[in-house]
Amino acid sequence: MFQSKKNIIAGRNPVIEALKSGQPIDKIMMFKNASGDVIQEIRALAKEGNVPVQHVPNEKLNSLTNVQHQGVIAFKSSIQYQDLQQVIDWVVGSGETPLFLMLDGVTDVRNIGAIARSAVCTGAQAIIIPDKGVGAMNEDAMKSSAGALERIQICRVNSLLKALDTLHLNGIKVFTSEMKADKRLFEVDMTEPCCIVMGNEEKGVQQYMSKSADARFTIPMHGDFDSLNVSVATGMILYEAMKQRMQAK
Amino acid sequence: MFQSKKNIIAGRNPVIEALKSGQPIDKIMMFKNASGDVIQEIRALAKEGNVPVQHVPNEKLNSLTNVQHQGVIAFKSSIQYQDLQQVIDWVVGSGETPLFLMLDGVTDVRNIGAIARSAVCTGAQAIIIPDKGVGAMNEDAMKSSAGALERIQICRVNSLLKALDTLHLNGIKVFTSEMKADKRLFEVDMTEPCCIVMGNEEKGVQQYMSKSADARFTIPMHGDFDSLNVSVATGMILYEAMKQRMQAK
Repeated sequence: MFQSKKNIIAGRNPVIEALKSGQPIDKIMMFKNASGDVIQEIRALAKEGNVPVQHVPNEKLNSLTNVQHQGVIAFKSSIQYQDLQQVIDWVVGSGETPLFLMLDGVTDVRNIGAIARSAVCTGAQAIIIPDKGVGAMNEDAMKSSAGALERIQICRVNSLLKALDTLHLNGIKVFTSEMKADKRLFEVDMTEPCCIVMGNEEKGVQQYMSKSADARFTIPMHGDFDSLNVSVATGMILYEAMKQRMQAK
Repeated sequence: MFQSKKNIIAGRNPVIEALKSGQPIDKIMMFKNASGDVIQEIRALAKEGNVPVQHVPNEKLNSLTNVQHQGVIAFKSSIQYQDLQQVIDWVVGSGETPLFLMLDGVTDVRNIGAIARSAVCTGAQAIIIPDKGVGAMNEDAMKSSAGALERIQICRVNSLLKALDTLHLNGIKVFTSEMKADKRLFEVDMTEPCCIVMGNEEKGVQQYMSKSADARFTIPMHGDFDSLNVSVATGMILYEAMKQRMQAK
């Protein structure tokens, strides 16, 4: 994918400054043989801020910018990522019942945009994404979200399992949407604080997520054709959650 | 849009033969000054088969084929369109309760594909489309439907209002999905035979459709952000209908 130059921060000190100031960064590309104290500091700051670091040959960096990059380039993000615990505190503090989404590897950017729209429309407060293996929160995603990605909290985490622990510690139940499960969507109580995990378009949720979930459900299907678009499936689930919460009031 | 030559039938007699044999045709392009008995016959057959006729300059036709087209080109369709009354008879005859969709001007081909997937998954039996102002049922639509467009009846009609009359005469209720309406989605009884009308992505359902409907409903929204993707909205509605029917059994 073409990365326009205005999205690039090149050079060791500029990248350190960006990381320290909390500016949203999608990822860092680093010369694979880069070393030294400053590089160590960048690695540490990136880890702290859940910013993925990709190691590449120098030619790759040269192809992306004409500026003296010193082996380090950062890509600015269109999204200001939030800390999961802070978001939970904020939602609970506002008197709302958490309704979160976790995207376990949804890769299509248009799907992510449509999912964000449904999330905002149905009152979900946050979307949790991993720092790898999820579609980029780039301008295409922003565009297909019709502004929704700016109206919902996006929490990027380096481990979905750790995020799951955080949810559990805060009394938020985790439900996975699967092709086969013992419960049907409308048999799950979504009036309580919960997070719904949507899997990859092809493979579904990862097994370790499924095992750690409080419940697994399936969207009931008519006949043997079992091929909902992931953003449509997410829409159905969020609609069910919203409806349950409306009727429980 | 580029129309590949294998999809083209050129010349007066080949087009007449295609129309007479009931071969699925997306549309006919005709030289705007074409005249004569054969042209009259093509017009009459097209009208009978609900095939739209577009009048174009001769240069347009020349740009589409090298074959001697005699002022007439037909575009083969990937879909075998069905007659609405026959579909109703077939559904009722099979002991099923009609659940139909009417697309009042949905233009995005990817949305049409996703809608067809949701329709098949939730047990809807037919999609009614107008012969103009709807996205083409072309290879892109087929692809994004993941095979669903081949597993559902598609009725193409030259008047949605006439189709609405046909539905009413057969005891099928018509519900329109609107941005503002007096009923919420889950307050509409969809266990009875019904057809759901989805409007254009920008403008919604046309006013005359809304007026002739048996009920108008809205998908309840959280807050002031009111921007669901049309295929996601359709998915939510079909999910509600499927669930009501499952729970009524």
